[in-house]
Amino acid sequence: MPDRQIVGPVPGTKVPRFAGSSTFARVPEIDRVSDYDVAVLGVPFDTGTSYRPGARFGPMAVRMSSRHLRPGHHVELGITPLQHIQVVDAGDVPVTPFNIDEAMDQIAGHASELVSDAHKVVAIGGDHTIALPMLRSVTAVHGPVALLHFDAHLDTWNTYFNAPVTHGTVFRRAFEEGLLIEDHSMHVGIRGPIYGATDLDDDKRFGFRTIRTTDLEDMGVPEVIGAINQRIGDLPVYLSIDIDVLDPAFAPGTGTPEAGGLTSRELLRTLRGLTGLNIVGADVVEVAPAYDHAELTTVAAATVVFDLITLMARRATDAG
Amino acid sequence: MPDRQIVGPVPGTKVPRFAGSSTFARVPEIDRVSDYDVAVLGVPFDTGTSYRPGARFGPMAVRMSSRHLRPGHHVELGITPLQHIQVVDAGDVPVTPFNIDEAMDQIAGHASELVSDAHKVVAIGGDHTIALPMLRSVTAVHGPVALLHFDAHLDTWNTYFNAPVTHGTVFRRAFEEGLLIEDHSMHVGIRGPIYGATDLDDDKRFGFRTIRTTDLEDMGVPEVIGAINQRIGDLPVYLSIDIDVLDPAFAPGTGTPEAGGLTSRELLRTLRGLTGLNIVGADVVEVAPAYDHAELTTVAAATVVFDLITLMARRATDAG
Amino acid sequence: MPDRQIVGPVPGTKVPRFAGSSTFARVPEIDRVSDYDVAVLGVPFDTGTSYRPGARFGPMAVRMSSRHLRPGHHVELGITPLQHIQVVDAGDVPVTPFNIDEAMDQIAGHASELVSDAHKVVAIGGDHTIALPMLRSVTAVHGPVALLHFDAHLDTWNTYFNAPVTHGTVFRRAFEEGLLIEDHSMHVGIRGPIYGATDLDDDKRFGFRTIRTTDLEDMGVPEVIGAINQRIGDLPVYLSIDIDVLDPAFAPGTGTPEAGGLTSRELLRTLRGLTGLNIVGADVVEVAPAYDHAELTTVAAATVVFDLITLMARRATDAG
Amino acid sequence: MPDRQIVGPVPGTKVPRFAGSSTFARVPEIDRVSDYDVAVLGVPFDTGTSYRPGARFGPMAVRMSSRHLRPGHHVELGITPLQHIQVVDAGDVPVTPFNIDEAMDQIAGHASELVSDAHKVVAIGGDHTIALPMLRSVTAVHGPVALLHFDAHLDTWNTYFNAPVTHGTVFRRAFEEGLLIEDHSMHVGIRGPIYGATDLDDDKRFGFRTIRTTDLEDMGVPEVIGAINQRIGDLPVYLSIDIDVLDPAFAPGTGTPEAGGLTSRELLRTLRGLTGLNIVGADVVEVAPAYDHAELTTVAAATVVFDLITLMARRATDAG
Amino acid sequence: MPDRQIVGPVPGTKVPRFAGSSTFARVPEIDRVSDYDVAVLGVPFDTGTSYRPGARFGPMAVRMSSRHLRPGHHVELGITPLQHIQVVDAGDVPVTPFNIDEAMDQIAGHASELVSDAHKVVAIGGDHTIALPMLRSVTAVHGPVALLHFDAHLDTWNTYFNAPVTHGTVFRRAFEEGLLIEDHSMHVGIRGPIYGATDLDDDKRFGFRTIRTTDLEDMGVPEVIGAINQRIGDLPVYLSIDIDVLDPAFAPGTGTPEAGGLTSRELLRTLRGLTGLNIVGADVVEVAPAYDHAELTTVAAATVVFDLITLMARRATDAG
Amino acid sequence: MPDRQIVGPVPGTKVPRFAGSSTFARVPEIDRVSDYDVAVLGVPFDTGTSYRPGARFGPMAVRMSSRHLRPGHHVELGITPLQHIQVVDAGDVPVTPFNIDEAMDQIAGHASELVSDAHKVVAIGGDHTIALPMLRSVTAVHGPVALLHFDAHLDTWNTYFNAPVTHGTVFRRAFEEGLLIEDHSMHVGIRGPIYGATDLDDDKRFGFRTIRTTDLEDMGVPEVIGAINQRIGDLPVYLSIDIDVLDPAFAPGTGTPEAGGLTSRELLRTLRGLTGLNIVGADVVEVAPAYDHAELTTVAAATVVFDLITLMARRATDAG
Repeated sequence: MPDRQIVGPVPGTKVPRFAGSSTFARVPEIDRVSDYDVAVLGVPFDTGTSYRPGARFGPMAVRMSSRHLRPGHHVELGITPLQHIQVVDAGDVPVTPFNIDEAMDQIAGHASELVSDAHKVVAIGGDHTIALPMLRSVTAVHGPVALLHFDAHLDTWNTYFNAPVTHGTVFRRAFEEGLLIEDHSMHVGIRGPIYGATDLDDDKRFGFRTIRTTDLEDMGVPEVIGAINQRIGDLPVYLSIDIDVLDPAFAPGTGTPEAGGLTSRELLRTLRGLTGLNIVGADVVEVAPAYDHAELTTVAAATVVFDLITLMARRATDAG
Repeated sequence: MPDRQIVGPVPGTKVPRFAGSSTFARVPEIDRVSDYDVAVLGVPFDTGTSYRPGARFGPMAVRMSSRHLRPGHHVELGITPLQHIQVVDAGDVPVTPFNIDEAMDQIAGHASELVSDAHKVVAIGGDHTIALPMLRSVTAVHGPVALLHFDAHLDTWNTYFNAPVTHGTVFRRAFEEGLLIEDHSMHVGIRGPIYGATDLDDDKRFGFRTIRTTDLEDMGVPEVIGAINQRIGDLPVYLSIDIDVLDPAFAPGTGTPEAGGLTSRELLRTLRGLTGLNIVGADVVEVAPAYDHAELTTVAAATVVFDLITLMARRATDAG
Repeated sequence: MPDRQIVGPVPGTKVPRFAGSSTFARVPEIDRVSDYDVAVLGVPFDTGTSYRPGARFGPMAVRMSSRHLRPGHHVELGITPLQHIQVVDAGDVPVTPFNIDEAMDQIAGHASELVSDAHKVVAIGGDHTIALPMLRSVTAVHGPVALLHFDAHLDTWNTYFNAPVTHGTVFRRAFEEGLLIEDHSMHVGIRGPIYGATDLDDDKRFGFRTIRTTDLEDMGVPEVIGAINQRIGDLPVYLSIDIDVLDPAFAPGTGTPEAGGLTSRELLRTLRGLTGLNIVGADVVEVAPAYDHAELTTVAAATVVFDLITLMARRATDAG
Repeated sequence: MPDRQIVGPVPGTKVPRFAGSSTFARVPEIDRVSDYDVAVLGVPFDTGTSYRPGARFGPMAVRMSSRHLRPGHHVELGITPLQHIQVVDAGDVPVTPFNIDEAMDQIAGHASELVSDAHKVVAIGGDHTIALPMLRSVTAVHGPVALLHFDAHLDTWNTYFNAPVTHGTVFRRAFEEGLLIEDHSMHVGIRGPIYGATDLDDDKRFGFRTIRTTDLEDMGVPEVIGAINQRIGDLPVYLSIDIDVLDPAFAPGTGTPEAGGLTSRELLRTLRGLTGLNIVGADVVEVAPAYDHAELTTVAAATVVFDLITLMARRATDAG
Repeated sequence: MPDRQIVGPVPGTKVPRFAGSSTFARVPEIDRVSDYDVAVLGVPFDTGTSYRPGARFGPMAVRMSSRHLRPGHHVELGITPLQHIQVVDAGDVPVTPFNIDEAMDQIAGHASELVSDAHKVVAIGGDHTIALPMLRSVTAVHGPVALLHFDAHLDTWNTYFNAPVTHGTVFRRAFEEGLLIEDHSMHVGIRGPIYGATDLDDDKRFGFRTIRTTDLEDMGVPEVIGAINQRIGDLPVYLSIDIDVLDPAFAPGTGTPEAGGLTSRELLRTLRGLTGLNIVGADVVEVAPAYDHAELTTVAAATVVFDLITLMARRATDAG
Repeated sequence: MPDRQIVGPVPGTKVPRFAGSSTFARVPEIDRVSDYDVAVLGVPFDTGTSYRPGARFGPMAVRMSSRHLRPGHHVELGITPLQHIQVVDAGDVPVTPFNIDEAMDQIAGHASELVSDAHKVVAIGGDHTIALPMLRSVTAVHGPVALLHFDAHLDTWNTYFNAPVTHGTVFRRAFEEGLLIEDHSMHVGIRGPIYGATDLDDDKRFGFRTIRTTDLEDMGVPEVIGAINQRIGDLPVYLSIDIDVLDPAFAPGTGTPEAGGLTSRELLRTLRGLTGLNIVGADVVEVAPAYDHAELTTVAAATVVFDLITLMARRATDAG
């Protein structure tokens, strides 16, 4: 990336952060620059939700809270990401709320136009269902990927009311479609009861290793980072972060809150240990602003999106 | 209804209203009495929503606020309804959130089991989509009905993202299916911009007369009541009340709020003028509790449901 | 009141209204002036509540919102009240939440110290139970009084779970104790169902005339004012204003909200028509801040308290 | 305006209203069309606020709620405005929150670039202070204007803590600067106490006629419309709408709420009667989203902005 | 428990969790099965509250959030509890809010009908006062018990405004009545200032050991579990869990929040270490929904109730 | 302090904590006692805020939540502070919101009247800008001080929109004015991105050592306490606590929330380790109640203020 002119975010010292652009972190809209490294894409779809809907307003709300970020130098990761890579806001997928299958196609179609070897997408959901078309798009370019999945729930159930594609079944579908590299995927942050003891067996059969929230507490963040890095190595990896991996105290604005979760500090520290990963795509999902308070959830989610971008910038720079 | 033993609600002087049964107005569950006149049915479906979802939690929330009603003597209507007719709570339709067509069948199937000549259903939504299967069930017993529709919106659009059945299109579908008696249906409370000027022509073509909110203000409530009674007379009529007919100040907890609406006093006074109608079914829809505050919306909705039941009791008594 | 030096409120142009004194409308504390005409008294008691408790926080919250009043010239009533009479804040009655009878004595004892022929009290509740000890104190000085009662509910029930003194029974008790002048009391704003048709007969037997909310709408505010003035004339009158006389849209922060109530404009206009009344005491009750939003209820209640004081100032001036 | 190609809003039937563009009503950004008739301009400034700040977030929040508008055919005004005139979103003025004088210059400078004989601006505040630089810009083009001012407060005080320019003093400043045509300005909706009786005299001296909220209730909306039209005629007029003209029940999200205000229906009906006015500029101010609930205030404000634009479209069409 | 037919909860895969039964975790109502092992009992009483009331709505709200539990396999405790023991919902005690003594008798009377050697009760409060009648009922069957008390406060004060039975004095009363086995009771989670240094001495005199929140942090959860198990051993133990043992961030919906508390993870991990205890009764109290947000507190409380039931199921199974 | 008569707070066992005095922790107003050791001073100023304003309501709200404190024996610090030193409430500085420079003078002037060698002030903000005039007042008495600064942000930026004094620049100004002892100041709790990598160098140049949130987690609270004590020793120290040092889950009511912060337990434990410090002044700032929920933030802030006072009492006693 030698001579390229990066168009960075609108600076908060020139335009107050409560004013101006409403793109993610106030980066340029996609059609205002000639090329990009990472596109942030809103996917306002929540018809796959089994409990509290509303994640369709997630992209709008996460972008709004992202205005508050001072997206300059990332101290922990030692880089000023938006000056090193071109990040753009690709707007929202125009997606129907009335038909899951149709929506899956709309999302995959839209994402596929944005994704290529040199172009990455970070999706803001939307409910977790959107991870399936995202994986379809990403794997069409990169082949099967390792999945690194932060969530309170496994999301590998089979069907719900006969529906094969919902926010609780997407990773079983992804596995069945061959989108995941076997034995290199992980769940982190799982907790709470499950429908039956066999759920865990199924999950293992799909090649997942699970670090439950209690495991994370016992291991400590550094050991968790080690386990992730060891399992995934340099394989292409897709990160899918359900905001309900956080405790409801840190992320009340979500559809299926589960007591006893991660602190936002634990999540951010874990992510910041993943500089070695080859992230080819990512999503942050299940932000339901109607249940949020004072932007607790959306500030956390916007920070996670910014950290994902920063990890991509680090990788590009380290590699570059 | 001479010698029948009516099982009334749990009395608030014996069990505090914040305790005990969670059925609507604390009437008995349907399987705890031998017969009933009116069944309150929850229809927790909101996948037909085009803006803010969440009406799936409507039945639960309206029931909860209904505990606060003192469901004794209705002063304006001069009757103690729950002592005159047997009202029961029929629970909720178990309805999939993932597929609109399937849900329509589940709702119609469930309602059809409850509806007959002598048994009436008041449905608590759910979004407005549920009015279609309700109409299918009711008209299967009574034949085509007049529709009396309180709403900020016409709900006679054609399709949305190609979906024929959504909360904005149900009454066009009902008309096309022959469920409505021509030239006897009415919208009351319409306001706000529309997609295009032709929407109104379509609507008229389906046989609706419209009393816009501004018309209601100009006419006054008594004249509106007169216009309704004149248009509907003694025809079997289905009442469909979208809570967004109220101004958002009175009903913030709804999906598509529209400024400049009715006060709850105007709505209740209008309803209380309809003692002459032959109501064969009814619904109260679009209560989205996540957007409510201090039960404003659900108290209003519970009062409307109670008034609908009282109208049915009046009719039964007057006729009896 | 010729030469007396009135200590007015802290002026909002010198100390910002969000700063400084936390007394009602920032008038002086009672022990900082030598004499007073009207004392505002907090009565933080809510154990007489049958549904949503929390009115114990009413005095604190109404005072806080009263800071926002610009308590200068009252345009409609044509007087600058806090410059004409000495108004003070008498703090709160220290009242037990654990025993209703004991609390009644504490309140009556405390109020009695403040009330005399020349000293008036406006109480801020607390739930409506506090009206009983207030009436006991006021009538000890003035003899029986006419009661002008704004409320959604009659509050003349007999007992609740065997408890004779609750927020729903106080005016029956007051009548039985001979505190009310027969045939000169009124309810204004009643609405909603009642436990039984006989409630109304009882109520009439206690000498009340009732202007229901629907009556008020039919009569219009000027006629209501006329009816009040005619019934009460120049008798000593106690005004008791349950904030739930307002529609929940205007006063969500209350314990037993009832759909279809007054607008705050209707209430204020009615009060402002009562310049001829000989008000010897008053209360504003049932403000439950936990259910309020953005100070809707407490701003309305503070305005009502200010208007009551202004009516007292008008009477003092007109008489003076 | 014969052959011009209008770029209308993103249609809600193609892109769901919860997705896509975050401009006002999803009209194009100003630099994406070659010319425009009306520019919507955000002015996120609230340092002139005397009580609850937060109106700096008004532009963002009103835009967000405007997505929910179906900005098609305006039934009452009989026009499809965004198809008849080119409306654009001009973004936000980058304005300092730390210095009132500097901010005034920034706003006036920015607005002046947008305003000309053929280009109009509707500003979204921000607190009411922004009306002063808006008036400076507009009058630089059009000369002195009549002011039509909807507000609970006069905003013609002199100084606050020695500050000459605050949200409570702007119209005295405007008068002193000769920006207002004498004897043709009006306040509508005034209510609540004032600092002193002389405030009213001052106000009259500046050439204002006042229709208090109680006057409006007595006159009725049609007579108010008549009075406005008579006073203003065809003079160039600037409309300044403080959202606190609405009762707090309809607009809780504002800085200085005042009980007893207009319903949103009364405000909208009054505005819709002003088709004859020659509106040369307008603002909607004092929306403080932190105090809003469920978008009550911002939906009302967005509707008001849309109606202002529609009035401009009507005038352009009627004249055209 | 060999051949018994257990009636489990309504399955979330058949009836959506936002629909259907409103019993705790959707287990059957008590009168719909022939026998039961554990009854969940609502005790909607909050007149013993010294600060923010509202826990009377606790049972209703905890039940509502419990619908969201997937009450299947408890991974940490390795059991599918609702398939192993018969759990029922016994509804609410009809309890007066107006008289503490009377309420104590109503609660003890009602609980005594449910409790026997083979039948256990988990009570959902209500304020902490309800623990006293619960202890009276349980000890009538089992004799004195060890008390394991999770709370921010000691609740062993003597009197409050002369009232001997309030939510801050119950365990002193229980000790005086001989309901507690001496030297085997514990407080866990205590923090914050106390009225005087002697409070601690009194408390020790009543035979309590205290693990303050800071002790818990220093010791770590496993050591705390060890200390509990050692002190209580196999004695019959009553668990009383005041939700304010959690930090207000995790449980805002409570009456006397205290900064610096437990995370829900710490509480759940501690409870899950108590598989060896012989729990003969339990309560979860002080959930005040009016102060909750997005069900933070009620989801945590419902999870705690579910874990208590699971511990009982484990004990029954391990013993069986 | 031998024979002095201390006037303690209104006891919660005599006057319920929801009643009576609205001073901080219900200590006496400053003019009701002859002398004092520590004055609590409200500084309701928020015009230095760069994002969400509203801290002007901080003093009022923190005082209100302080009523809930039981300000008796501080168990961890082993003292009953309000019986050992005379603490008073000095009310609020009457401060203009319209001009930063003028406000700085008003605050410094007011604080200077309260501060002397024997009189200490704990200020409740207001935004962080108020620390500058507080430092000016304190250092006028004590000479330069060490600064111990808890915050998510450095607050040593240079200017914002050309404004030299804002809540993000105060400590650079303080350093430039020579108010800080070089090489003895510390930031604790810093996190999040910064505008540029050079920010950190500037900060170091001003003599700060920084313990980032991640450092605190790695070091543990005891080691942090050691580092603070070592760096500051017995130098006069000013403590400035921005409530946003807490994670937004623990302090949502603040202007610039930053994910991944301290728990309130970590903050309180750190403070409680500072018994050796010679605290000559302190502030707790950036509490913005409009964004708070259920007093989460204000209860935490009130506890911090109480702990600061207790540290001062300990020092006075240990020294005495």
